Amino acid sequence: MKRTSFAADTCPVARAVDVVGDWWSILIVRDALIGRRRFGEFQTGLGVAKNILTDRLRKLVATGVLEQVPAADGGAHMEYTLTDRGRELLPVVVALGQWAAAAGTPITPVDRKSGKPVRLVFRSADGRTLDPRDVRLAAADAG
Amino acid sequence: MKRTSFAADTCPVARAVDVVGDWWSILIVRDALIGRRRFGEFQTGLGVAKNILTDRLRKLVATGVLEQVPAADGGAHMEYTLTDRGRELLPVVVALGQWAAAAGTPITPVDRKSGKPVRLVFRSADGRTLDPRDVRLAAADAG
Repeated sequence: MKRTSFAADTCPVARAVDVVGDWWSILIVRDALIGRRRFGEFQTGLGVAKNILTDRLRKLVATGVLEQVPAADGGAHMEYTLTDRGRELLPVVVALGQWAAAAGTPITPVDRKSGKPVRLVFRSADGRTLDPRDVRLAAADAG
Repeated sequence: MKRTSFAADTCPVARAVDVVGDWWSILIVRDALIGRRRFGEFQTGLGVAKNILTDRLRKLVATGVLEQVPAADGGAHMEYTLTDRGRELLPVVVALGQWAAAAGTPITPVDRKSGKPVRLVFRSADGRTLDPRDVRLAAADAG
């Protein structure tokens, strides 16, 4: 059995995979999070073929992650900005970055107000911070 | 310009994407995190074609995310377990799950000791918890 969509899967991880689609999509979201808005900016930054970028942008708009808006400079072209739903992908991008991060990581999550770095951590209901090794996945339904 | 590998990319998100490879890989990691170990368990759980599963398992072993170990029951077959590096992907899986989660999410991160649910949150150096909306990505080098 070969699956082409995870949309009906009961597991939220699989549903997220279905919406975000593939790794190009997550890199587009990363670039949108650091302020890129124009087709050409995404293309240059990612080094992605135009037809792939066109397809992924269309899909991200269709799934409500990005929206098309008029150019900020009043030009005739359209630009892409993250929806609220799209901005909520920030922890996914940061988790991937923390996993692979070496010294001098070029992408850092910071407090909007202070500009100081923040970390993505696990926190218990009583406010303790847990090491990822002290966390396990409990699966009510393995999905 | 069409890219086939992000390995040399300076951005850790892109490097993570290169190692984990594709969404099947992250779903395999999810299943390994909830305790699946055997080829047949992954295949049944994911509904993935054998050739794709074989390829992804091989790649995850080659990149140090999974390792092959003798069967826990003493049988002749090999099983797959997460390496330390692989287990560190837990925040990525949880971030994807939190993004798509509805009520009654079947996969919940819990404290290994207490079994109580924990959350993935942003935390500042002084210990405050930040809403994702109060966090932005600062890119020293947009990569």
